[in-house]
Amino acid sequence: MFKVYFEDFTVGVTETYGNYQVSRAEILEFAEKYDPQPFHLNDEAAAQSVFGKLCASGWHTCAMTMRMMVNHMAAQGFASSGSPGIDKIRWKRPVFPHDILHVQATVIEKSDMPNKKHLGLVKASYEVFNQDNSLVMSFIAPAMFLKRPVNES
Amino acid sequence: MFKVYFEDFTVGVTETYGNYQVSRAEILEFAEKYDPQPFHLNDEAAAQSVFGKLCASGWHTCAMTMRMMVNHMAAQGFASSGSPGIDKIRWKRPVFPHDILHVQATVIEKSDMPNKKHLGLVKASYEVFNQDNSLVMSFIAPAMFLKRPVNES
Repeated sequence: MFKVYFEDFTVGVTETYGNYQVSRAEILEFAEKYDPQPFHLNDEAAAQSVFGKLCASGWHTCAMTMRMMVNHMAAQGFASSGSPGIDKIRWKRPVFPHDILHVQATVIEKSDMPNKKHLGLVKASYEVFNQDNSLVMSFIAPAMFLKRPVNES
Repeated sequence: MFKVYFEDFTVGVTETYGNYQVSRAEILEFAEKYDPQPFHLNDEAAAQSVFGKLCASGWHTCAMTMRMMVNHMAAQGFASSGSPGIDKIRWKRPVFPHDILHVQATVIEKSDMPNKKHLGLVKASYEVFNQDNSLVMSFIAPAMFLKRPVNES
């Protein structure tokens, strides 16, 4: 089932993936549930805000990005084991209805985990772009990956 | 409508709020949509993972925390104008079905925004605890707040 283990990641390598079509209905649904601020729910309030137009919650952009990441991990057979956290999320531009998002991920660091010998940590830098190739969000995320089992090496 | 402006925040002050009841159905719904990794969807896969039991996506914990933050902002009348990003998200413990979450937020820094004279930046440290008062997540977030209008001072 797994094809890509800790050993298979190389610092400096970039992958590009994803094609997330953002709908107005999904923006409203997420905002009603998790981030009901006026500029995520109401066109008039959004027009008067720093965003200028109704836009997605930044946390929604994170969630949509995670979906692209998980689809990619599943398609590639990544032996992913979760993440201890995320650094430096920056919402650079608003995400609007009908935007189409994609991800560019670059491996920036690899390290062993002293307390978990069967896992390794792969830190990557993520950039999320819209259909105009404008950067909408960036963050840095370490992720835990299984090391390749001895009988598969 | 707004009662609490940039000027009203004081470095060092802590607020505690929220009472988010996490359901298994909501964990599954979020995970199916945004983070369909086996340990967020399937009890057996979760039992074999580092988490030990089916648990919420870390991004879902962020979203639930945001809902508590927005409820608090609305109840208090915060003149909130969004956030440029988030730093140092750390998922300390898994969030399980039936957990009840609350937030402890401490103001750690205030600053003017050179390009936006009507706004100020309030940086706060957030800690999210479960019903056992165990820390499940922490992060640091700067948020933009309107300055108090001159005619209201």
